[in-house]
Amino acid sequence: MPAPDFPDAAPAAFTRALALATQAIGLTDPNPRVGCIILAADGRELGAGHTQAAGQAHAEVMALRDAAARGHDVRGATAVVTLEPCSHHGRTPPCCDALIAAGIARVMVAVQDPNPQVAGQGVDRLRAAGIDVQLADAGVADAARELNIGFFSRMQRGRPFVRLKSAISLDGRTALPDGRSQWITGEAARTDGHAWRRRAGAVLTGIGTVLADDPRLDVRLVPTPKQPLRLVLDPQQRLPAGARILQPPGEARVIGPGRADLPALLDDLGRQGINELHVEAGPTLSGAFLDAGLVDELLIYQAPMLIGEGRPLAALAPLAGLQQARRWQLVEATPVGQDLRLRLRPA
Amino acid sequence: MPAPDFPDAAPAAFTRALALATQAIGLTDPNPRVGCIILAADGRELGAGHTQAAGQAHAEVMALRDAAARGHDVRGATAVVTLEPCSHHGRTPPCCDALIAAGIARVMVAVQDPNPQVAGQGVDRLRAAGIDVQLADAGVADAARELNIGFFSRMQRGRPFVRLKSAISLDGRTALPDGRSQWITGEAARTDGHAWRRRAGAVLTGIGTVLADDPRLDVRLVPTPKQPLRLVLDPQQRLPAGARILQPPGEARVIGPGRADLPALLDDLGRQGINELHVEAGPTLSGAFLDAGLVDELLIYQAPMLIGEGRPLAALAPLAGLQQARRWQLVEATPVGQDLRLRLRPA
Repeated sequence: MPAPDFPDAAPAAFTRALALATQAIGLTDPNPRVGCIILAADGRELGAGHTQAAGQAHAEVMALRDAAARGHDVRGATAVVTLEPCSHHGRTPPCCDALIAAGIARVMVAVQDPNPQVAGQGVDRLRAAGIDVQLADAGVADAARELNIGFFSRMQRGRPFVRLKSAISLDGRTALPDGRSQWITGEAARTDGHAWRRRAGAVLTGIGTVLADDPRLDVRLVPTPKQPLRLVLDPQQRLPAGARILQPPGEARVIGPGRADLPALLDDLGRQGINELHVEAGPTLSGAFLDAGLVDELLIYQAPMLIGEGRPLAALAPLAGLQQARRWQLVEATPVGQDLRLRLRPA
Repeated sequence: MPAPDFPDAAPAAFTRALALATQAIGLTDPNPRVGCIILAADGRELGAGHTQAAGQAHAEVMALRDAAARGHDVRGATAVVTLEPCSHHGRTPPCCDALIAAGIARVMVAVQDPNPQVAGQGVDRLRAAGIDVQLADAGVADAARELNIGFFSRMQRGRPFVRLKSAISLDGRTALPDGRSQWITGEAARTDGHAWRRRAGAVLTGIGTVLADDPRLDVRLVPTPKQPLRLVLDPQQRLPAGARILQPPGEARVIGPGRADLPALLDDLGRQGINELHVEAGPTLSGAFLDAGLVDELLIYQAPMLIGEGRPLAALAPLAGLQQARRWQLVEATPVGQDLRLRLRPA
């Protein structure tokens, strides 16, 4: 039976598979979030699934199991998957083998594996088995990469994707001069901030923020299957034993004594399987990350309010001139409640 | 001949008339910007026009003249106009009379005259002459009001609509600590800023900005039929005779000696026919306008850059708490080149 041919359906099929992958956020770390659907020749969906927690089934296997549970024959069908199927034995057998054994005729892949040492091997293995493999266009590939931007970072650079979050006024203040900051942004922005925290394998802050605000830095305003690891940089061992960040749910770890070497810390977190690192800190630590060029994304909630004198977003090294300022590129400016969510990446 | 009936065409007709009115920006002050089209029963455009410079023809007369020049008979036609036709003798005869004399059968009006003492009189006069008058829906009325927001302010409050413009970094800085500010925002934002300056009847700054930057504050990056009046608050007579703001094109006026009473100044500018006042000043004067609650709109160009230590947008009175901060409402967040244009109004 020939594989079906429905290129017009490809964008919708990838959109559906990416939506499934999105459901895996907060679940699969350190593994990537992957979605898979299996389509009959007429475009009907036979099965669907997404990656489970590490060590459990991957998206392709979940979709095959779903099709079987629904009584569908998938021989000759098309699998649409948001990341190149794995060809190696990890904690689970290779997904390529599952697709081949099931008699899948065509596999549509949103984006290649980011690990340069294995990229393309899944595609090769499928093709060697006589499966027709098609790669998505650049737009779909970008969306698939964004969903796993931390996994791509760790595979390609050995360290997490660093997202620095801040809530500021229009005039760039994070708090009044005495530190009061509740609340600059509204409830919708705070909830949205938790949704971004949930994406992270770890949330990092500094001892100054802990001593000033005693934050929990867990994910509680949105549902999550697991909590990110919470990290506190505490060079002088000032962390009180009763600090809320040390309490459940979720684990916390203190980094210190001694001043942390940030690039080395990132390499270390990469080795520990942290894909996205969420930095939510005061001006000193934020400034250190920014001055070192270690921030991959600024996530800023900007409140429609002017504060005047107050605390800055970051204590940065003085600039010799405006030409020396690091340039960023706006990725989005999206209203969230009464506030504006800005995301920027290095230009 | 009965008036044509084409309600479905109304939004498009108003869009066209508003586009004509937009062409009158920078031309008609202190009069409002008005556009008019004349449509045949089948929807064909017989004539079109917009208000000319003060003392010259209004939009309705221009549209009637255009129809005549094109050889069209407008008897029984529909006039679509962005502001209620005037019923009084100003420097020109009432537009109502021109429409009546021309035999127009229907007039569609985007929004009523903002002057509470004359609102509705144009509509009454047209109806008394047997003309079918229809008022636009709220969406069209809002758009028509926005286009003449300064004229509405002056008619209803006796003072200009005050727009405070600033160019800031992500962290709310307008300049380095030594005052260097060239350039935080890019060329596209600076050009866009001139387009907003062009809308203004007057541009206001403080002596501090003149002494620091020696700006021209004229409109030169976009074409304009006339220059706004330029105003400098100079309480201690420190303005150098050679300041560029005093040079052509356009007029300039110094306000001083003595500290200006801002509400009284606005009343005075209202009496002088200033519809929109564009404030482009340093932190002291911006802070004074903001603390006094005299700013109707913030126009902020936000550059994707972090500066760290630097000059603030406004020197504001200290807040007792965050609850005391004046709240704003975001009207738009629009990318302009690499920067973001934010407009906000009091919440």
